Amino acid sequence: MLSVNERALEITEVMVDWAEELKVEEIKLKNKATVIDCGVNVTGSYEAGLMFTDMCMGGLSTSNISVHKLGDVALSFIDVTTDHPSISCLASQMAGWQINVGKYVAMGSGPARALSLKPKKIYKRIGYNDNFGGAVIALESNELPDEKVMGYIAKECGIDVENIVALVAPTASIVGSVQVSGRVVEAGVHKLNELGYDTNKIICGAGTAPIAPVLSDNTKAMGSTNDSVIYYGSVNLTLKGFDESMLKKVTSSASESYGRPLYEMFKEADYDFYKIDVDIFAPAEMTINDLETGKTYHTGYLNDEVILKSYEIKNL
Amino acid sequence: MLSVNERALEITEVMVDWAEELKVEEIKLKNKATVIDCGVNVTGSYEAGLMFTDMCMGGLSTSNISVHKLGDVALSFIDVTTDHPSISCLASQMAGWQINVGKYVAMGSGPARALSLKPKKIYKRIGYNDNFGGAVIALESNELPDEKVMGYIAKECGIDVENIVALVAPTASIVGSVQVSGRVVEAGVHKLNELGYDTNKIICGAGTAPIAPVLSDNTKAMGSTNDSVIYYGSVNLTLKGFDESMLKKVTSSASESYGRPLYEMFKEADYDFYKIDVDIFAPAEMTINDLETGKTYHTGYLNDEVILKSYEIKNL
Amino acid sequence: MLSVNERALEITEVMVDWAEELKVEEIKLKNKATVIDCGVNVTGSYEAGLMFTDMCMGGLSTSNISVHKLGDVALSFIDVTTDHPSISCLASQMAGWQINVGKYVAMGSGPARALSLKPKKIYKRIGYNDNFGGAVIALESNELPDEKVMGYIAKECGIDVENIVALVAPTASIVGSVQVSGRVVEAGVHKLNELGYDTNKIICGAGTAPIAPVLSDNTKAMGSTNDSVIYYGSVNLTLKGFDESMLKKVTSSASESYGRPLYEMFKEADYDFYKIDVDIFAPAEMTINDLETGKTYHTGYLNDEVILKSYEIKNL
Repeated sequence: MLSVNERALEITEVMVDWAEELKVEEIKLKNKATVIDCGVNVTGSYEAGLMFTDMCMGGLSTSNISVHKLGDVALSFIDVTTDHPSISCLASQMAGWQINVGKYVAMGSGPARALSLKPKKIYKRIGYNDNFGGAVIALESNELPDEKVMGYIAKECGIDVENIVALVAPTASIVGSVQVSGRVVEAGVHKLNELGYDTNKIICGAGTAPIAPVLSDNTKAMGSTNDSVIYYGSVNLTLKGFDESMLKKVTSSASESYGRPLYEMFKEADYDFYKIDVDIFAPAEMTINDLETGKTYHTGYLNDEVILKSYEIKNL
Repeated sequence: MLSVNERALEITEVMVDWAEELKVEEIKLKNKATVIDCGVNVTGSYEAGLMFTDMCMGGLSTSNISVHKLGDVALSFIDVTTDHPSISCLASQMAGWQINVGKYVAMGSGPARALSLKPKKIYKRIGYNDNFGGAVIALESNELPDEKVMGYIAKECGIDVENIVALVAPTASIVGSVQVSGRVVEAGVHKLNELGYDTNKIICGAGTAPIAPVLSDNTKAMGSTNDSVIYYGSVNLTLKGFDESMLKKVTSSASESYGRPLYEMFKEADYDFYKIDVDIFAPAEMTINDLETGKTYHTGYLNDEVILKSYEIKNL
Repeated sequence: MLSVNERALEITEVMVDWAEELKVEEIKLKNKATVIDCGVNVTGSYEAGLMFTDMCMGGLSTSNISVHKLGDVALSFIDVTTDHPSISCLASQMAGWQINVGKYVAMGSGPARALSLKPKKIYKRIGYNDNFGGAVIALESNELPDEKVMGYIAKECGIDVENIVALVAPTASIVGSVQVSGRVVEAGVHKLNELGYDTNKIICGAGTAPIAPVLSDNTKAMGSTNDSVIYYGSVNLTLKGFDESMLKKVTSSASESYGRPLYEMFKEADYDFYKIDVDIFAPAEMTINDLETGKTYHTGYLNDEVILKSYEIKNL
């Protein structure tokens, strides 16, 4: 069985070796845990964003950046492919571990989850768990974790704290923007899982989404980075045994809230994330090829208007 | 002289090392021949499709996958570049060796041809042949070859059977779809050769084509995978000494049969491949830059309508 | 501090190892200087063009080629990203060193400039200089440099002549076309510097431009290769502390001469480069994201008409 943590750790070793080039910083805590700052006290970089993405997917992905037009505007886009969608997206990349230790709050994702089994039902469902002696966690947060936080994570993973690495990037940072758009395939795979489809039957996936310009605060950036996927993320999956009736629900346009930036919905919900209609968390469009029937479906569409509004781009 | 088999063998070694990640399987036959199943009893993967393509081109190419729009539909596309078009496309990638051993039937391509010289006139024409002590052949087939088939191939190549590797993928498989679209530059180079142009004067080539969704049976998939190139393949060649009069014939639209999916033509021809108008086997569009004159020509066009019909995409 | 020459030398070593594949040629001069011919007596290649670009940017970039549409025409484009825009573009890639030794004339660029400090004000401005014991220079020229030329360059760099490598490509060559389009991000960074912006505050940049077909002579090619950036180059920068008033001047359309191929302007100026309006040397469009304010601006546009005229493409 492939170990997502083994591969992710190899990526973090490269990140440490190339820290100056990547504009990230390695910090060794007193309890020997390792933190790699990708955007809190450093600027981070595009390359660090790609490595953050590949790490989050347990090394079972390829990703790269290129410039395309979004309406009249030239923007950087990320392309992601994976041949292990269920493991790389759900067992690893999914933001399924809310970290709350004292005052420290972060959205946790990445391969460490495959040791701590957060949330357990996902791992039971897909029948995967890692048993490697080291772990990497991705933390979306404005602050770096301290010894206590890392100790908690290590304990939950059942490993020694010196064998744990945390990559940290704020939502409103370059790496933050890259890595959220890097979740475009995951958004599609996750949605299929939510709809009851057995994601182990997905064979490969490819996706692309624009990389949100960095907004001035994290709450707004939470909106715009997710809008990259919601209003302009394209996902192409090859799978077996698809149920056509799911097509009505797989894209963001299935949500009643569809049609305005996520930040507006968030504000309207008095900044309570759990009041937002969950149907909105899906790619803008999906193309699904079912190998069992040879059928291919496309649903959803890209929405220039909403995404440019969300990005707050002033087009002269 | 560059050896296409030497480089191709290096790629197959990487494929064996990463078999689990690539979702391919190495099989050692009793006569010590090596078979790598890329889609018969395994699912294969995007990455295996790219490596299959690079292997077919003798390692003299780069290839990658990204998602683009085809009309309203998001699909995975392959991009291929080569700086050795004549050797990589004609001496290696071209599907020029029909394998018939007992009941086993497969379309053979790849660098092994540069040892068996199939067909001889191509190698005479371009003045290239390999003399490496090992070989790799690509087999488009639903079945894996046995000892007898591999023995035949080795004998034709003039090498020991333990030094031969076969990569096998059915037409209707992920690797099948990727590798046929990966022939987009070859389609252009081959057409120029057919028209009498000396392909050794082509300096470099780049191309892109959508990767056909996998259809339910191999006959239909034969149509749709080739339609990727015929109706939506773009090729850009830089060469010397071009004859403008060839422009009328270099793209698929030069064919009288142009305008409907290849599968329909095939059906009409009573499934006799040799009754199909050969003019159809060409890229949808070509851009040709002649270094001797500084002139650049573009001809042909992409055809959304026919390709979406061929792919049988249901666009909701 | 990162050394642009150290990384560039590593790239040249790879180029020498793969000379046959890259279709370049290493020449050792009598004074032990190294020249790598990328297009004078050899054809060069796409891959050599990418390595030339990465070398010019001091190894602080990624670049790749893919095929896209420019109007109706399929052309190869280059994508470039860098996480060190100020160093890679201004301290290294910028064509800031005019070489005139006897009858030898070449436009010099690349990391050697960070030793010879050409021009000094740039290095003072950005506070960077290299102190590596070897150097690589890129020469845009029809001729290979001799011992005298290389001796001069070594002396200006303050290093021994055996430690200097020159990569040479004519303007009208494949590598020439690739490497000029590879300057797309540099064009944007350079323009901001000219307008008085402190480029050290640019965090990362991405850009894309078509690769000009090779024209028949170098003077015309000087026009068309630069037009790739001027009329069809897109640049996306992430930076801090931008001054909005610069937006009127950052793209080529700010120039009074905008609207026809550069070669026409050049001809009109009696082939005196310094009579051409400098405002024209800028990307066609720019998207700028200011991390300090969270604001994002887009200005400029792509111009199909002028670029296709400049490329002299005959569209059938």
